[in-house]
Amino acid sequence: MAFNILTCPSCGIAVKAYRNPVPTVDIIIEINNGIVLIERKNDPIGWALPGGFVDYGEKLEDAAVREAFEETSINVTDLKLLGCYSDPDRDKRQHTISTVYIAKGSGMPMAGDDAAKAVLFPLDNLPQMLCFDHDQIIHDYLTKKIQL
Amino acid sequence: MAFNILTCPSCGIAVKAYRNPVPTVDIIIEINNGIVLIERKNDPIGWALPGGFVDYGEKLEDAAVREAFEETSINVTDLKLLGCYSDPDRDKRQHTISTVYIAKGSGMPMAGDDAAKAVLFPLDNLPQMLCFDHDQIIHDYLTKKIQL
Repeated sequence: MAFNILTCPSCGIAVKAYRNPVPTVDIIIEINNGIVLIERKNDPIGWALPGGFVDYGEKLEDAAVREAFEETSINVTDLKLLGCYSDPDRDKRQHTISTVYIAKGSGMPMAGDDAAKAVLFPLDNLPQMLCFDHDQIIHDYLTKKIQL
Repeated sequence: MAFNILTCPSCGIAVKAYRNPVPTVDIIIEINNGIVLIERKNDPIGWALPGGFVDYGEKLEDAAVREAFEETSINVTDLKLLGCYSDPDRDKRQHTISTVYIAKGSGMPMAGDDAAKAVLFPLDNLPQMLCFDHDQIIHDYLTKKIQL
């Protein structure tokens, strides 16, 4: 069993909280023949798919729509599940489990929230060395796209 | 933001821990032309797919193999993602997000861990009114099976 160690605000003693992997979502926003990537403001710095944590009480699909809008100002629709990514080392900070959706968008992205930039890249000119396991996710996405 | 309220073991004051939805897995174990269901020992009592919580540091697929074995004694292989189920009301106790796999098994199931019984049901004679949203999951599974 894994625990988070908290500090009691009154007496300062360590308090153990049961620790689970943390659910996140990432979104592949398709616009014309490209997808939207963000440049992250916070560590790890670099290009990544838009995404973030799923709130308690929030459905995965709702989290995907919310995170896509917060980081890129794009309203996404037609969500389709690409896959789930749960390697404990995919995020060096903590064990996250990402559910990844492919979604349709329109308009020009505009960066918000955790994103310093939000840019529509053509599929044949994507940046390399994305944060986390997002190179793998995009590889899986492109493979699936060829198969369809 | 949602919090779990813990009790400091030293001074008894309430300590707030940030709360996320909790990742789980469920497994549709295919044996011949049937699937394995368990009768749950604990609340909610009833028939359900085998499954359980994903441990911190554990991949989803590894959790699915482990839970299938613990509850049914079947070693599953050939995991395929069916879908993700994240309605906050799917489990009355807390908000869980289940990633559901279809997997191959063989042999006769034998109940263990949280399962009072583990039974191989033919697809045309499955029990109704399963626990959680497992009727929906099985409906989606059967729909996908017809499409393939």
